[in-house]
Amino acid sequence: MTMAETTNFDAPALGERAARVRATVPLVHCITNYVTVNDCANALLACGGSPIMSDEPEDVADITSICGGLVLNIGTLNRRSLEGMAVAGVRATELGHPIVLDPVGAGASRLRTEAAANILDTMAVTVVRGNMSEIKAVAGAASSTRGVDVDPADVVTDENLASSCAFARNLAEKLGCVVAITGVIDVVADAGRSAAIRNGHPIMGKMTGSGCMLSAVSGAYVTANPDDTFMAEVAAIAGEGLAGEVAASRMGELDGNGSFRTYLLDALYNLSAEQLAGGARVEWVA
Amino acid sequence: MTMAETTNFDAPALGERAARVRATVPLVHCITNYVTVNDCANALLACGGSPIMSDEPEDVADITSICGGLVLNIGTLNRRSLEGMAVAGVRATELGHPIVLDPVGAGASRLRTEAAANILDTMAVTVVRGNMSEIKAVAGAASSTRGVDVDPADVVTDENLASSCAFARNLAEKLGCVVAITGVIDVVADAGRSAAIRNGHPIMGKMTGSGCMLSAVSGAYVTANPDDTFMAEVAAIAGEGLAGEVAASRMGELDGNGSFRTYLLDALYNLSAEQLAGGARVEWVA
Amino acid sequence: MTMAETTNFDAPALGERAARVRATVPLVHCITNYVTVNDCANALLACGGSPIMSDEPEDVADITSICGGLVLNIGTLNRRSLEGMAVAGVRATELGHPIVLDPVGAGASRLRTEAAANILDTMAVTVVRGNMSEIKAVAGAASSTRGVDVDPADVVTDENLASSCAFARNLAEKLGCVVAITGVIDVVADAGRSAAIRNGHPIMGKMTGSGCMLSAVSGAYVTANPDDTFMAEVAAIAGEGLAGEVAASRMGELDGNGSFRTYLLDALYNLSAEQLAGGARVEWVA
Repeated sequence: MTMAETTNFDAPALGERAARVRATVPLVHCITNYVTVNDCANALLACGGSPIMSDEPEDVADITSICGGLVLNIGTLNRRSLEGMAVAGVRATELGHPIVLDPVGAGASRLRTEAAANILDTMAVTVVRGNMSEIKAVAGAASSTRGVDVDPADVVTDENLASSCAFARNLAEKLGCVVAITGVIDVVADAGRSAAIRNGHPIMGKMTGSGCMLSAVSGAYVTANPDDTFMAEVAAIAGEGLAGEVAASRMGELDGNGSFRTYLLDALYNLSAEQLAGGARVEWVA
Repeated sequence: MTMAETTNFDAPALGERAARVRATVPLVHCITNYVTVNDCANALLACGGSPIMSDEPEDVADITSICGGLVLNIGTLNRRSLEGMAVAGVRATELGHPIVLDPVGAGASRLRTEAAANILDTMAVTVVRGNMSEIKAVAGAASSTRGVDVDPADVVTDENLASSCAFARNLAEKLGCVVAITGVIDVVADAGRSAAIRNGHPIMGKMTGSGCMLSAVSGAYVTANPDDTFMAEVAAIAGEGLAGEVAASRMGELDGNGSFRTYLLDALYNLSAEQLAGGARVEWVA
Repeated sequence: MTMAETTNFDAPALGERAARVRATVPLVHCITNYVTVNDCANALLACGGSPIMSDEPEDVADITSICGGLVLNIGTLNRRSLEGMAVAGVRATELGHPIVLDPVGAGASRLRTEAAANILDTMAVTVVRGNMSEIKAVAGAASSTRGVDVDPADVVTDENLASSCAFARNLAEKLGCVVAITGVIDVVADAGRSAAIRNGHPIMGKMTGSGCMLSAVSGAYVTANPDDTFMAEVAAIAGEGLAGEVAASRMGELDGNGSFRTYLLDALYNLSAEQLAGGARVEWVA
């Protein structure tokens, strides 16, 4: 493996993406799992957006019509919510709304893998965001990407960063959307560009929902920044990672994942455009 | 518009309503959305009540039979939970239990507007509580109120307070229940009386669930105070608003909506009858 | 009634059970209610395990196959989730995974009582954990235990401790599993042994979910300690009780059940094997 060639990123542009969320207060329709739904709603409010949750097939078309974007999260999916996702996705596609897909647990069950693939095959998904295992499952299962050649490791490291980015760009081209792979190092790619983000803190993996919250926040960012989904997604990821760093720095000796969860929302709530521009650790990866 | 004529309110009576909740620990059956259900349960415990959640049609009649009151919240409604609400509502009506309706998102989708109207048409609802948009949707859709004349603004202000209260009293008379419209200024009305409540803090709109929690808490208050639903509802609203003020006053520089959510529950938990009597900002509106 | 004969317990062995959870990070499949599901997930992470939630009948067999243990909690049960529990339970039984049953509300509705009985009749349940009312309902309803003779009080006290433990041992023998009855004094029994645990704090009853969290944590403990389910369950209960004591000791004047909930997760997160060995208040009861 060769080391990745990296170049500096335009951090002020990330701050502008964040500012646009607070300025426009995007209304985001979420069909999401019941484990972390409260955190997703509060994270959307904290970053400057506004959440609406609805998963009933008879309800979702009306709800998505009054929103600006749609987030589909397949954790705790069921037959009824999958039908709701299908109806909402069709309506959002008609209206040209951005759609964020979080393929929670793709690869862990056949139903989840197929659900993610089906969403990608039938809707105009704007961003797919998951961990490497989920994204690999998506890459292998979506009919548009079956037989994908790249076989990246499950964890993105400095050693495999170049090949992980190439995998992400390749998948982004085939799916026609932005691909975000989050982990210790996060990777964001479209067909022509890829970036690595090094914000975050290990304790984020010790609370449930940091990934789901990021997908919800991504929904607000891409809805508020329709001119550049790639940069919006990088800003969302760097912003939550930076908020995680701030939250971790507040922790005292007796604090654990309970307090961290509270502090993470607090830090998202207080995250300013200047703070993001100054604290984002992002680099282009060729 | 003419300014509203206001007169002072009997604050100690509000404290007595709160005290009766803690003295009687009313058991409240909630069929509520999965976004804020945990906050609703903890808010019920914090104010002195006890929660039971159940939405399965085969389960709800038994559950509601052992409770003292019922709260129906139509956020994230689905066909099964709507059927559960119907069964529970019939049983609660038979038993003479108070029923609180929170028409979350009425006006935002046809299913929600119709669900709220159907509940009002088929059950003996005791209190309907929502924001002005939701209450206007309810007023327009319920068969008993179709063609209501008043067209108040969506936000209650000092300028439209008199007409907003007239609208609420009129709707209360037509529905045969207490109407609570919450916002920067809250309005509570029955057919013959109306009051305005000025407690609360703007950050309550930046966390998800402050409205749902208020409906749950209202369920405890009206169950514990069957002799005067109007005063019980005023006490519930003033109490949560006051708790919001206490919670906001605890916030430090790094705190956001995560900490506020925790502080709000804490303040509800510690709210005493004396504190409510001293801190409620309520006035009669003619 | 005669006072129970008690003897000292091997506290260091409890610390070893806790340490094994952190060393092995057991993956636990939970089918649980939507009220406290987020707390269950964070409690599992806090104690050293890892949660997966899935209740869709088409999804659960795959999910449970990649896990090490299964927790079934019948709060907010519905026909679909009951079917999911049945499918997951069959698969977990085939795989030899431990199954923890939390019969939330058994006795409060016919559906819940029958659901708990049906699970006990059709699956190889490893631990059933509930309060005395729930366990009594289970004892009366399960076909294997119908007609059980013991009629213990609903609250375990020093006065009825011996008879409560005899009831628990008797039920454990009939069900072929460990029985855990939690309250002010907790009782754990298998067919041949019983112990009483005196950790905990009254405020645990003023937040929703402390029981559900304990069942989830129990899932991690019994999965990580397949050689001695009894000791694992005692360790789980003493550990959460001790965490509750630590959490209560952190509370300031303005704190209530909101902060307590956060502190409880924090204390579970920081609970060490040494702390458990030193702080557990457990005794054998003959």
